[in-house]
Amino acid sequence: MAWNKVAVIGAALINFGELFDQSYEHMAAGAFQAACGAVDKGFDPTQVEAAFVATQRGTLWGQEGIAGNTVPSAIGLAGIPCTRIENACPSGSDAFRVGAMAVASGVHEVVLVIGVEKMRDKSTEEGLLSRAAAGHPIFTRGETAPVLFAPFATRHMHEFGTTREMLASVAVKNHYNGARDPYAHFRNEITIDDVLNSPPVCTPLHLLDCCPQTDGASAVLLVSAERATEFTDSPVFVAGFGVATDHPYLHEKSTFTSLTATVTAAERAYKMAGIGPADIDCAEVHDCFTITEILDIEDLGFVEKGKGGIASLDGETSLTGRIPVNTSGGLLAKGHPIGATGVAQITECWWQLRGEAGERQVATRNGFALQHNVGGRGSGVSVVNILTTNR
Amino acid sequence: MAWNKVAVIGAALINFGELFDQSYEHMAAGAFQAACGAVDKGFDPTQVEAAFVATQRGTLWGQEGIAGNTVPSAIGLAGIPCTRIENACPSGSDAFRVGAMAVASGVHEVVLVIGVEKMRDKSTEEGLLSRAAAGHPIFTRGETAPVLFAPFATRHMHEFGTTREMLASVAVKNHYNGARDPYAHFRNEITIDDVLNSPPVCTPLHLLDCCPQTDGASAVLLVSAERATEFTDSPVFVAGFGVATDHPYLHEKSTFTSLTATVTAAERAYKMAGIGPADIDCAEVHDCFTITEILDIEDLGFVEKGKGGIASLDGETSLTGRIPVNTSGGLLAKGHPIGATGVAQITECWWQLRGEAGERQVATRNGFALQHNVGGRGSGVSVVNILTTNR
Repeated sequence: MAWNKVAVIGAALINFGELFDQSYEHMAAGAFQAACGAVDKGFDPTQVEAAFVATQRGTLWGQEGIAGNTVPSAIGLAGIPCTRIENACPSGSDAFRVGAMAVASGVHEVVLVIGVEKMRDKSTEEGLLSRAAAGHPIFTRGETAPVLFAPFATRHMHEFGTTREMLASVAVKNHYNGARDPYAHFRNEITIDDVLNSPPVCTPLHLLDCCPQTDGASAVLLVSAERATEFTDSPVFVAGFGVATDHPYLHEKSTFTSLTATVTAAERAYKMAGIGPADIDCAEVHDCFTITEILDIEDLGFVEKGKGGIASLDGETSLTGRIPVNTSGGLLAKGHPIGATGVAQITECWWQLRGEAGERQVATRNGFALQHNVGGRGSGVSVVNILTTNR
Repeated sequence: MAWNKVAVIGAALINFGELFDQSYEHMAAGAFQAACGAVDKGFDPTQVEAAFVATQRGTLWGQEGIAGNTVPSAIGLAGIPCTRIENACPSGSDAFRVGAMAVASGVHEVVLVIGVEKMRDKSTEEGLLSRAAAGHPIFTRGETAPVLFAPFATRHMHEFGTTREMLASVAVKNHYNGARDPYAHFRNEITIDDVLNSPPVCTPLHLLDCCPQTDGASAVLLVSAERATEFTDSPVFVAGFGVATDHPYLHEKSTFTSLTATVTAAERAYKMAGIGPADIDCAEVHDCFTITEILDIEDLGFVEKGKGGIASLDGETSLTGRIPVNTSGGLLAKGHPIGATGVAQITECWWQLRGEAGERQVATRNGFALQHNVGGRGSGVSVVNILTTNR
């Protein structure tokens, strides 16, 4: 039996991309206003009792040392409690979980979860990802995100015969989906040859195996399940969630063919929701690199370990496949504005479950959608949230 | 009637100071082990189901781009959910609130709240506080923390006749208390003349009106109220809490004689706890500067607006006064390792309510202690937590 103590009554994102014309505050306000506008029966913004803001690096877009407690003023709600949640790449999905717990605790009945990230205003050298390693004796010497994930691709190829074409098929699918998502950073379709022939970044990962750096914001509104029908006749409930950490450094990993934090987080989320992977209709998973999505769909239980590559190439995760994955375009095409990513994935799940995904709409027979992020030194932490239309 | 859904069963801090010999992970582990050791009936560390880590600037101690999700591995609990909470100076107190809501939600029964901050490893120019303003068009041109708080002192003096001696009396009292706290960064008593004659920092605040930059870590263990007696016969309960934001910038403030976020946060906390300021036996409040404590004791309702200076000079907030404030030495003497500060204040309240504060022990007639932080561009956010021994 699913948890279902909390309902999502509104969800939205702004167009992801290079948003040089928008400040952090503008982006936050845009996402918040859009989420309020998405509430079926209307929503007075002053009903928000508390906010949780996901931003991974407030300091690094160069305008604000602190993120989070400046957001209420920017969105017209100065005074409300507001807390910043940072948990590496899963910051947005973890803020969603914390917001849900705040509602379930009975302390707050109407909670805003908002994700915002400014990634394009700084140069690559001064930007968020390079600063993440500033001062570290190892990371400052070349350990970038592609360097952290490439060894998993190499090992997966070695153990399971996964090919570069299989990796490329993930990028092709997600760009196909992204071309059908008006909010995506990249809306162009690509071919397997495009991926294979793109410049190498860290072997075996090439440029089109990697997600872009993107500016973006997204927001969801949560209320107690009892009050959901005040706001909508089509509520989506939080069925369950799970978080797991792992030893953060690569030399501590027990395997290079699985991101074990994802396995544990998924087990916890499935248990809380009272379901298994076969019950999931569609999923938004963390495809920071093509190999990551292949690991994800195995670690989340959608395909057998080792079969993620061939399943992707065979179209099992396409819009019309057995288990559609990253219908929004994923991080690869929609973009990965870190704090905003998880909340935007929740929004895509909300649209899919409500039948509002337009060209990207998939069949939702069971009424369950799954959202997933992994990050932090490769796979130091993973968060899985499961949404449902089943009361 | 107090909230009382959650109990504190263990609390501890490590010795605050310049901890060049300890890494971030060492500090976290030390605080966690001490908190486990403080549980009356013993505590198996593997009982921790989830952790919330308060660190304001993980990036800036130069070893780790992310804070929080690396802590479980460092304390022997790799795998557990772990979330970083950042909310400027109230980061630790807000992590405590979020941890309490996680327990009250029923999702987690045993939660660790841990605060850690490394502030001394970097030079002042490269350190946390200067980086907070990096890139900002105004803040990079001299708007430091003393610059943000000094105008409040100037205005308080102008409106209420508050004197530099009254400000100084706060530092004298807190150093007196700190000299009796084995965990304090500074354990020397000082005189009013010492404060008056210390070098000016930002008029009217002189060096001894300002808290130091300090390394430190602290931890508390929370369980559901129903399970408290499994761990202790002297539980302390979370009676209530409140958070409030304000417009973040000085030019947006409605007053310079009150930190209005504190007033609102306190109202919310008192309401949740079903009490008023007169019920509080002792309080740990945010004395980043002497003027801040004077504003705090007014804004929290302990003394009439405008009377905070004379009340301090008259000893009303001393260990034997009407309402003892900052018995631990406060930020001024114990130190202010940002993420650790709030959790350490909670620890002092826990000791006082349990009669374990040694030389610093005050009378706790009503069984209520209050903990308070304010911060974020001066007063962008405030958090108040109220603890009680009354079931």
